[in-house]
Amino acid sequence: MNLKGILKILNYVIGIEGVFLLLPALVGLIFGEFYEAFIYLNVGLTCIFICGAVLFLIRNDKKKERGFYVKDGFIATALSWVVLSLIGALPMWLTGDIPDYVDALFESASGYTTTGASVIPDLSVISHPTLFFRSFTHWIGGMGVLVFILAILPMAGGSPLSIMKAESPGPTVSKLVPKIQRTALISYGMYIALTALEFVLLLFDGDIPVFENICHTMGTAGTGGFSVTNSGPAGYSTYVHIVTTIFMMLFGMNFSFYFLLITGKIKDAFGIEEVRWYIGIWAGAVILILLNLFANGFGVKDNVLGVMFSCASLMTTTGYTITDFGAWPGFSHLILMTLMFVGGCAGSTGGGFKVSRIMLLFKQVGKEVRQQIHPNQVYTIRVDKKPVSRDVLRSCNVLFIAYVIILIISILIVSLDGFDHVTTFAGVLATYDNIGVGFGKVCVGGCFNIFSPLSKLVMVFDMITGRLEILPMLLLIHPATWRK
Amino acid sequence: MNLKGILKILNYVIGIEGVFLLLPALVGLIFGEFYEAFIYLNVGLTCIFICGAVLFLIRNDKKKERGFYVKDGFIATALSWVVLSLIGALPMWLTGDIPDYVDALFESASGYTTTGASVIPDLSVISHPTLFFRSFTHWIGGMGVLVFILAILPMAGGSPLSIMKAESPGPTVSKLVPKIQRTALISYGMYIALTALEFVLLLFDGDIPVFENICHTMGTAGTGGFSVTNSGPAGYSTYVHIVTTIFMMLFGMNFSFYFLLITGKIKDAFGIEEVRWYIGIWAGAVILILLNLFANGFGVKDNVLGVMFSCASLMTTTGYTITDFGAWPGFSHLILMTLMFVGGCAGSTGGGFKVSRIMLLFKQVGKEVRQQIHPNQVYTIRVDKKPVSRDVLRSCNVLFIAYVIILIISILIVSLDGFDHVTTFAGVLATYDNIGVGFGKVCVGGCFNIFSPLSKLVMVFDMITGRLEILPMLLLIHPATWRK
Repeated sequence: MNLKGILKILNYVIGIEGVFLLLPALVGLIFGEFYEAFIYLNVGLTCIFICGAVLFLIRNDKKKERGFYVKDGFIATALSWVVLSLIGALPMWLTGDIPDYVDALFESASGYTTTGASVIPDLSVISHPTLFFRSFTHWIGGMGVLVFILAILPMAGGSPLSIMKAESPGPTVSKLVPKIQRTALISYGMYIALTALEFVLLLFDGDIPVFENICHTMGTAGTGGFSVTNSGPAGYSTYVHIVTTIFMMLFGMNFSFYFLLITGKIKDAFGIEEVRWYIGIWAGAVILILLNLFANGFGVKDNVLGVMFSCASLMTTTGYTITDFGAWPGFSHLILMTLMFVGGCAGSTGGGFKVSRIMLLFKQVGKEVRQQIHPNQVYTIRVDKKPVSRDVLRSCNVLFIAYVIILIISILIVSLDGFDHVTTFAGVLATYDNIGVGFGKVCVGGCFNIFSPLSKLVMVFDMITGRLEILPMLLLIHPATWRK
Repeated sequence: MNLKGILKILNYVIGIEGVFLLLPALVGLIFGEFYEAFIYLNVGLTCIFICGAVLFLIRNDKKKERGFYVKDGFIATALSWVVLSLIGALPMWLTGDIPDYVDALFESASGYTTTGASVIPDLSVISHPTLFFRSFTHWIGGMGVLVFILAILPMAGGSPLSIMKAESPGPTVSKLVPKIQRTALISYGMYIALTALEFVLLLFDGDIPVFENICHTMGTAGTGGFSVTNSGPAGYSTYVHIVTTIFMMLFGMNFSFYFLLITGKIKDAFGIEEVRWYIGIWAGAVILILLNLFANGFGVKDNVLGVMFSCASLMTTTGYTITDFGAWPGFSHLILMTLMFVGGCAGSTGGGFKVSRIMLLFKQVGKEVRQQIHPNQVYTIRVDKKPVSRDVLRSCNVLFIAYVIILIISILIVSLDGFDHVTTFAGVLATYDNIGVGFGKVCVGGCFNIFSPLSKLVMVFDMITGRLEILPMLLLIHPATWRK
């Protein structure tokens, strides 16, 4: 293992997080909350100082770098996310906004992993810097912290592809252009543009304050789901709900789609199979739930927007709620839970198992059946007309297996808290798939404080594991990684 | 597709089922229930007549048989099980024991697939022939109907391996001896011997009537779970509970184990990895549940046998209950649900996903992680020190995927009945994994009558699909199978 290379990346991460923390300090100044601003400033400057000091100390280290392999990239990424969460928890805890460190860690991990599950029952007593910071972690976590570093810093001797692979969701890295650094830069460019567009569109709504607009937009962009008011998005106008629905879907889309669009390959863009499945699954879920509501005597017309919003919110793993879907019939719940598991597209900010992998799972079953019917024919699994390599299929399957195993173990541990099965299951699913809301006692984002510290730590692990798609975290905790 | 070959096998199946139906008729005579005896006799003779007539009509058909391929074997098996269930439902319906045909079909499929889920709320009003027949279908279904035919009839031009593959549980067929027919014969021999042994041991309990002993033994042997009294096994003595626990575990074991034992290869027998995992998982579950009960103030000493019995019952997918595990804490429920999914060994009469496949799933995840840590090393997945072929792994993974997909779709449909999520989930799991009892409103076997006819039909599909391990039923319903 290239420990030095990994520590170097961690050092960058600490420095960048220090810079991030200056923004909430600024927010504190604007809102006149100087105590909180001071704490965010302090923690931020300390991080920057540590990073700078380390860089200064190793400035003459001209020794040739050892190779930086895929596993080093994976471990660096996993460790970075753990460190990000641990440090991000500090100011929230020190300001007293969240009096318990484990709670603050849960909130911080929930922010960076764009989960949006919260332990804060009353947001009205929380300081503006913390409110801003929570939403800002969504925005950063959505596209990935290391991808951000990748975009702005040259990685001497690193293996940028392995980092991109560990941090970007999906079975394969969609390299938009051959160079990884440029890919990261373009991705962040499109991300910023889309975010800005949502912000501007929300400005047209006269009622939503600019601060709330910024936080809400960052929460949408990262498919996070933290709110800054107790009523959450439900308190905003229908116009905001429509804009949010559209942008949740846009941010859950494979970003290759936008790249093809802006480079003029419109036909290719709409030809992406994953995008079609993504829209198809969403639309199918909307129709099924509307039918179910109709059959159970709910007013369909009043619920169309609520259903479209909820399906978009849970499928893209954002977790915003404008309607009490807990009151819908069981069938609708299960459709929503299925969407939670499916998740957004690869190469988006959405979480979950990813539409492209669901495609691969279905195609494999179809192939197996057809192969049995016509044993002499040779079938190949294709996506976007290109054959999928055996390695991609294998790793997709192994991921699915590992996903289910970790899900079951997490549910078992959390069940020790003694809640009903729906709460336990939904709580784990909501964190593991980075959604933030569920059913039973976790039907809104703010009530994860009901769980025990042990369960919260399991959920922190699940949130990061879910965000990084399992393998990096498995590598991090596997004893063989740390053996000589 | 070799339709003629398939129909030929179906014809045998009808004939054999006719012979089976004569036994309940005999039971009716013994108990003086002549009306029911008459009906079983009639349906039985009709089946035998149909089979005989067809054989007579095609006696001169000397045309060379077309090849009988794997897919033909799969479709023949799937169709056979559907036909078995459809015919088996007839006498139960005609006698009036089960007044509704869909209910009778559910009961019949539940019997043959050794599920043991019942729609009969009160067993005391059911005739002896039907009680016997239900338990007898368990016994036949446990080892497999076609395997039975294979053992006693020469299959001209058939592909016995594909039938064995479709009907015997597990990722690979454990051929005990090179010849398939002899393997089937030896398997049934060991099955009969073990069944007889349990019967004799239960004779030592003075209290259990011989009729109940026979039915209870057949239910254990097939890992079925139908009872013949309303109190079920709970009404028997501790001695019966201990014997039943041991025999449930014995019938859930890979039968290769016994073959190695009786051929003197004792070391090899205990070296079978699956057997070790099987015992290990069961023991682990027992310990975890006992700890959980202890932590929640349950008396541990009073519950040891109940926990061992319940774990054995749910893991081997038998479904007998002697204790109200619904009253245990949530963690214990979830451990039991995990056991329900894991199931028994390959090459046993148990259902579920099978221990050997669970082994393969875990080993694949372990391999993937180690491969990432040491990318230049070549890792091979081995079971019993023999490398596992890529084909076996692929089909294990595809099965897992298909299993989960069918599980989710089934839960969605059954949820339309509007029961709580635990009942819906447990109801589907209890039928799909051929267990017969669950949690919520299906905590005992006799209450599946709460579901709608649609749900019951879904469960019939799930029971047969679970018993035949998915692929044969997928082939049966896939349009490409029936296209020219």
